[in-house]
Amino acid sequence: MTKTSNQMWGGRFAAGPDAIMEAINASIDFDKRLARQDIDGSRAHAAMLAACGIISDSDADAIRKGLLTVLSEIETGKFEFSKALEDIHMNVEARLKEIIGEPAGRLHTGRSRNDQVAADFRLWVRDQIDAVDAALVALCRALLAQAESGADWVMPGFTHLQTAQPVTWGHHMLAYVEMFGRDLSRFRDARERMNESPLGAAALAGTSFPIDRNMTADALGFDRPAANSLDAVSDRDFALEFLSCASICAMHLSRMAEELVIWSSAQFRFVTLSDRFSTGSSIMPQKKNPDAAELIRAKIGRIFGANVALMMVMKGLPLTYSKDMQEDKEQTFDAADNLMLALAAMEGMVKDMQANRESLEAAASSGFSTATDLADWLVRELGLPFRDAHHITGSLVALAEEKNCDLPDLTLEDMQSVHDGIRQDVFDVLGVHNSVASRTSYGGTAPAQVREQIVRWKGILA
Amino acid sequence: MTKTSNQMWGGRFAAGPDAIMEAINASIDFDKRLARQDIDGSRAHAAMLAACGIISDSDADAIRKGLLTVLSEIETGKFEFSKALEDIHMNVEARLKEIIGEPAGRLHTGRSRNDQVAADFRLWVRDQIDAVDAALVALCRALLAQAESGADWVMPGFTHLQTAQPVTWGHHMLAYVEMFGRDLSRFRDARERMNESPLGAAALAGTSFPIDRNMTADALGFDRPAANSLDAVSDRDFALEFLSCASICAMHLSRMAEELVIWSSAQFRFVTLSDRFSTGSSIMPQKKNPDAAELIRAKIGRIFGANVALMMVMKGLPLTYSKDMQEDKEQTFDAADNLMLALAAMEGMVKDMQANRESLEAAASSGFSTATDLADWLVRELGLPFRDAHHITGSLVALAEEKNCDLPDLTLEDMQSVHDGIRQDVFDVLGVHNSVASRTSYGGTAPAQVREQIVRWKGILA
Amino acid sequence: MTKTSNQMWGGRFAAGPDAIMEAINASIDFDKRLARQDIDGSRAHAAMLAACGIISDSDADAIRKGLLTVLSEIETGKFEFSKALEDIHMNVEARLKEIIGEPAGRLHTGRSRNDQVAADFRLWVRDQIDAVDAALVALCRALLAQAESGADWVMPGFTHLQTAQPVTWGHHMLAYVEMFGRDLSRFRDARERMNESPLGAAALAGTSFPIDRNMTADALGFDRPAANSLDAVSDRDFALEFLSCASICAMHLSRMAEELVIWSSAQFRFVTLSDRFSTGSSIMPQKKNPDAAELIRAKIGRIFGANVALMMVMKGLPLTYSKDMQEDKEQTFDAADNLMLALAAMEGMVKDMQANRESLEAAASSGFSTATDLADWLVRELGLPFRDAHHITGSLVALAEEKNCDLPDLTLEDMQSVHDGIRQDVFDVLGVHNSVASRTSYGGTAPAQVREQIVRWKGILA
Amino acid sequence: MTKTSNQMWGGRFAAGPDAIMEAINASIDFDKRLARQDIDGSRAHAAMLAACGIISDSDADAIRKGLLTVLSEIETGKFEFSKALEDIHMNVEARLKEIIGEPAGRLHTGRSRNDQVAADFRLWVRDQIDAVDAALVALCRALLAQAESGADWVMPGFTHLQTAQPVTWGHHMLAYVEMFGRDLSRFRDARERMNESPLGAAALAGTSFPIDRNMTADALGFDRPAANSLDAVSDRDFALEFLSCASICAMHLSRMAEELVIWSSAQFRFVTLSDRFSTGSSIMPQKKNPDAAELIRAKIGRIFGANVALMMVMKGLPLTYSKDMQEDKEQTFDAADNLMLALAAMEGMVKDMQANRESLEAAASSGFSTATDLADWLVRELGLPFRDAHHITGSLVALAEEKNCDLPDLTLEDMQSVHDGIRQDVFDVLGVHNSVASRTSYGGTAPAQVREQIVRWKGILA
Repeated sequence: MTKTSNQMWGGRFAAGPDAIMEAINASIDFDKRLARQDIDGSRAHAAMLAACGIISDSDADAIRKGLLTVLSEIETGKFEFSKALEDIHMNVEARLKEIIGEPAGRLHTGRSRNDQVAADFRLWVRDQIDAVDAALVALCRALLAQAESGADWVMPGFTHLQTAQPVTWGHHMLAYVEMFGRDLSRFRDARERMNESPLGAAALAGTSFPIDRNMTADALGFDRPAANSLDAVSDRDFALEFLSCASICAMHLSRMAEELVIWSSAQFRFVTLSDRFSTGSSIMPQKKNPDAAELIRAKIGRIFGANVALMMVMKGLPLTYSKDMQEDKEQTFDAADNLMLALAAMEGMVKDMQANRESLEAAASSGFSTATDLADWLVRELGLPFRDAHHITGSLVALAEEKNCDLPDLTLEDMQSVHDGIRQDVFDVLGVHNSVASRTSYGGTAPAQVREQIVRWKGILA
Repeated sequence: MTKTSNQMWGGRFAAGPDAIMEAINASIDFDKRLARQDIDGSRAHAAMLAACGIISDSDADAIRKGLLTVLSEIETGKFEFSKALEDIHMNVEARLKEIIGEPAGRLHTGRSRNDQVAADFRLWVRDQIDAVDAALVALCRALLAQAESGADWVMPGFTHLQTAQPVTWGHHMLAYVEMFGRDLSRFRDARERMNESPLGAAALAGTSFPIDRNMTADALGFDRPAANSLDAVSDRDFALEFLSCASICAMHLSRMAEELVIWSSAQFRFVTLSDRFSTGSSIMPQKKNPDAAELIRAKIGRIFGANVALMMVMKGLPLTYSKDMQEDKEQTFDAADNLMLALAAMEGMVKDMQANRESLEAAASSGFSTATDLADWLVRELGLPFRDAHHITGSLVALAEEKNCDLPDLTLEDMQSVHDGIRQDVFDVLGVHNSVASRTSYGGTAPAQVREQIVRWKGILA
Repeated sequence: MTKTSNQMWGGRFAAGPDAIMEAINASIDFDKRLARQDIDGSRAHAAMLAACGIISDSDADAIRKGLLTVLSEIETGKFEFSKALEDIHMNVEARLKEIIGEPAGRLHTGRSRNDQVAADFRLWVRDQIDAVDAALVALCRALLAQAESGADWVMPGFTHLQTAQPVTWGHHMLAYVEMFGRDLSRFRDARERMNESPLGAAALAGTSFPIDRNMTADALGFDRPAANSLDAVSDRDFALEFLSCASICAMHLSRMAEELVIWSSAQFRFVTLSDRFSTGSSIMPQKKNPDAAELIRAKIGRIFGANVALMMVMKGLPLTYSKDMQEDKEQTFDAADNLMLALAAMEGMVKDMQANRESLEAAASSGFSTATDLADWLVRELGLPFRDAHHITGSLVALAEEKNCDLPDLTLEDMQSVHDGIRQDVFDVLGVHNSVASRTSYGGTAPAQVREQIVRWKGILA
Repeated sequence: MTKTSNQMWGGRFAAGPDAIMEAINASIDFDKRLARQDIDGSRAHAAMLAACGIISDSDADAIRKGLLTVLSEIETGKFEFSKALEDIHMNVEARLKEIIGEPAGRLHTGRSRNDQVAADFRLWVRDQIDAVDAALVALCRALLAQAESGADWVMPGFTHLQTAQPVTWGHHMLAYVEMFGRDLSRFRDARERMNESPLGAAALAGTSFPIDRNMTADALGFDRPAANSLDAVSDRDFALEFLSCASICAMHLSRMAEELVIWSSAQFRFVTLSDRFSTGSSIMPQKKNPDAAELIRAKIGRIFGANVALMMVMKGLPLTYSKDMQEDKEQTFDAADNLMLALAAMEGMVKDMQANRESLEAAASSGFSTATDLADWLVRELGLPFRDAHHITGSLVALAEEKNCDLPDLTLEDMQSVHDGIRQDVFDVLGVHNSVASRTSYGGTAPAQVREQIVRWKGILA
């Protein structure tokens, strides 16, 4: 071991066991982010205690005013957080006592740190869901704007990163609207499920004080009080479900980011990203690295990593509260922050990006991309079974390849040499614009369908 | 390298590249589990094609009958699956062709393997959600029966695996009903979200045949057709959301299983598990190993492992279908099977297990578990601030510890030596039965509350 | 819930709790893969017992012969595995008893299922490491062959999927040799660390029989007996370390597979994969989907998923053996099988693939890829500080872009208009071949360096 | 969405796209932890450039002095980090230019940010391995001290959390020494494998400057330069292997922590943790919550979560550097910090903890824990086959259970009623002290074996 690292750790833990315990045990460095939620919760609790006659109105009033002072101190950066007081709850309560004296000691009546932290953290996660909701709506709107501009621009539809059939730019943008739309729905379900108040569960058993749990629930915007006090203090499903939803959303972002990276390569040139979301090279001024797209692609790592981390923490924990659960917050904070950042960056990139319409159409027009249209024509017009039509089409593609041309470039005679029933009107389906226009089944790539879906989504997001 | 393993792999891959490609590429070994869904889907598709005039009624009829024959062959084990035909779709279609000839070639009109496999797999996952739903309901009922028997049995409520306050057995059982009830709600939301038909998305762009996607959706019990064909063939959210829900549910199972393992140790003796879910030792006939509980505890590994696996597969995949996605099924099958098994085993164990009422009550009565009740009495009856009451209670516990007795064993004089306002009626709150009975706040541990919650849950699960 | 799925599960669990317990508890369906290892271990144990005088020579001889008979029955598919006998150990021992009678009952002296399964599984993992070792060597050789063919072929070196500088094909292939070479070294370290014999640890405490643990260790090719009996039966590090190594290796495979997918797109056309590792389309005969590459890319999912699964299982398990640990084998089996498959498929693809030399060179020559060479020339020849040289180069690139040409197409006058010290010999560094040839620092892309590294690796792998 | 969260995000991103890009792109907030490594690397690089005649000695000297000034500014907290300069490399270089002027522009000759960051991060990870090494040695020494004190204290050896056989406290402590000893060996292998210098790989292709890579490698304590420049800048195996080793180590910690939590429960009372690593309750002064043990148990979550995160980031990344890889550092930093903290806390707890010798022995003596000893006696002394001996022992245990006594309390007549060959000396093996003393096979639980292993480990760790 080198001296340097020895000294570093020696330095950090010089004070011995007590310093180590403080380092591992205190949560104030991160749970101070719950300050507003903690104070909101305490205000609701104090008001309820007074309404139920458990504390006096004047005590409640002193508490309310004191808490507002504490909040103001925190929000203006004047509050001095103490590591010795371990967590945000004790920091706030200790300061409240300094400000208002004895009534502060009555605030914790019928409450425990266990239901308090559960309520604070739930409120925080709920706020994040609301923020993610807004960010997803904004991203979908940016995608809809792209879809609207290019509802009929033609591009290759890929399978296996090989051109399969022509599709429209608008249709491709809408595919992502579907994905982020599902994310939206998933976060909203999660919000509804988690919107229960743990306050009143106390340490774990409920309380003998005649409290009114509905009143605190209402005051904090919860839909109902949690129905089992043991569960209320040992449940972290709300964080895990948030992380699950965030992970799936980050997966969608990673797919779109991958496409942007590939599309902005010199070989594809499908899109041009704005300078604001790229970085250049001092030496190669023409070079644009899609940094934001790459970072967005990578964010699934830490977001899903947080999901794994919290699942691992919760695995096999006996009821009710165990200190292990203190590991819940940092993971959730980090995942939420990074999801918000990735969504905002993606929205910005989508707004700014320029589809290279010519490159897209050129790519769509090569590679015999309308072979399926030809086969479908054979089925529809000549009544051939699908599998036979496919076989004939294969021969025609082989012929075109041999002639070094594409399908629309074959002559009618060429066509008839393979199947003599083929007629002149077959050429109507072979152009990429005809191809996409013909896919009018619900949800298909036809520009008309794309425009209908844009209208539908605008309604949903309105 | 040893000869043996060399030979093993040499043997497996002796045929060279072709054998390797078949081994990595063919999916029939696992996707044959989709046989019923595949045939259901094909039947719905053929009926729709005929109704829309795309194929003749007689072809549709031949297809329908042929498919039923294939299904029957599969279900009776007479079907010979071919690895050369790669997957379930080609296996079924090839056999159909043998049975009905030319009309079989018309079945695939307006369809592709991409929308077909997406529909099959979705139907399979939906069936699993229904099976899990039933298993969760059954488990909750078993827990409710335990809760009903022991609504007023007293046991220790733990934090940090240390006794904190007395609670009731019924209340503890209900905590798990809450967890599994949330799982139920989560699976149901997932079912609703995923219940969309990919059929008609075709390869990726939709189709030019005048198909009716609503008709196939209806026939297969889907709520609606998927609204974007690109998304329909590249989406695996339904599997990921199933795996996320399954993972959280498996986490709940792991917590309960951990409790059962600890509770059935010689040191705790809180429960006796039935012989059916334990294994013995030939040499120590009295020994009962909680094998089923341990295996249930472990199942979160492979279930969440499957979630990680599929997230990893989907990360960064460009649209639309990539062969990577073939890795989706085995993970989902394995997770679903093991979740069902774990739920069934847990239900069986809960039904059979015997709570050792005396051990539970003895454990609850030690460790000054009613100290909080004493503090609450001081607040409620003497009007002390909560923090002061806590301080006084601490002194009384210290006194009891010094006298080597528990709180109810102190004399009134002892009590008054610490705070002279304490009255005889303080003793009313110090017994564990009084303690639990007093926690009547909504969701609290009082037997009356427990019985109310049992009624509520019976209504929900009815 | 649909009837069908109800019935399915109803059917499976119709026999009630006993069927459920058997389904969750029995391991014979998968641990029969340990048959050879189990019999090897038993043979070594019996021979040692006789050598130490614990059983008679004639008993040992009967056991040896009986075990060989059992092995032969298993290897020829004649053995009937019984689920009621739960696992491979009991299946083998029961059959042995049928064959040789009473002496079979002496085999288990001084042994327990706990050390037995630990030894069997370790032997299996060790065999897998040997198989992976050989597969990695074969893959590296295939890469070296590619490197040798194209030691001086020029291709773009990418950062951010944007061309940065020209490199050589051989150099790029060698980058993967480095990665897989590290994998090799990692697996070998793991093998050495895990090569300890658990036999003799017995149930967990060791044994009072005068056994010779070194003798069984030697017979089975272990380097030494494990030094602590409690650890020997509760340790699964060897499986976890195998999975960790396999995961990193699978990550390397995913990167190479991603490159192959991108390189074989119509837009890149850097490589042509052989038909043997691609799949075609009946309708687009020219289309080649890189299925094997996609599947290899995806394998990291299940391999790392297995790693997550087993980590999750082991988290928080008290010593020594818990039944949870029975979940170790299926994960490890699946990961090992899929890693072997992916390595074999990658080796096959690398052997068969054709680099498109012209496309590679054309791509390398565009995008001002020798701008850094120009800057380095300015530093080296004109003594400019690096940052200034970069600035001047940027101006020259901008000039070339404006003139719609590449750097080597500028005239000397163009060059001197930006910096008048530039001389004619600057053009020597602007061609891509000169560029790569000049990167002769150790490990650089110069063909000479590439050929030196090929020699070095051939020596290592010999 | 609530106004508040809207405003928060609105506030953060008020400046629009540029603020978002800066937030997602800049790394200085975390990579400033690499400051010392960055400056060490630059000093080595500048010295080499001068030695090779690429820059002048006076420039090199100016750079060296300037860098020392920068380092001193950073270490004394006087340095002002700029987010606009993005990362630590640009921050240092910009400041260097302010201090020394023009020569600063020559430092980057023959180097790129790609090899620079790879070198910095490698050095940082290497330092961490050294720190972890020391922490593991310290923890093993604490465990050895416990083992030495209680080499012959008897405690239950558990399987399935059920008493199986008596073992010694020292033996149990040594089981953890084996685990942490393997961790040590794993980290050391990782260190050796990763100790290669990326410097000189430049952007990705190597350089045409006549640099001496061995010289910089030596100066920085690397064993050799990395052999392929593409690999050198795109490899993050060293971080992944560190995270894999850390994860397995954290798993060991989680197992030991779980045991400490269970052992310190009121029901077990096997150990008493010191007040320094527990937290109390103001109201229940006798209560000791094992907070540190719980937090250690939980640390596997974030450590393995970091492993998952980085694996996910690296999955499918084409060569060479992609911006995704910027996500490597925060994960590794967090995992390293938390592993160090967990190891230090565990060492502290082990040093302080008191084994409750009487409780341990009492627990070991109940539950017929010496049944195996009895069976072994029957095999050894009476020559019975193992399976028969087990059957007889089972009957004797049943008899003892019926008589409500333990095995040593049976009379010889009782014994002989089951098997008449049993002699008086059977009682020698039935006491727990005799039992453990008899397990003298290598690695067994006998105190003599334990003491030998302590000596062996002291030698290894010396």
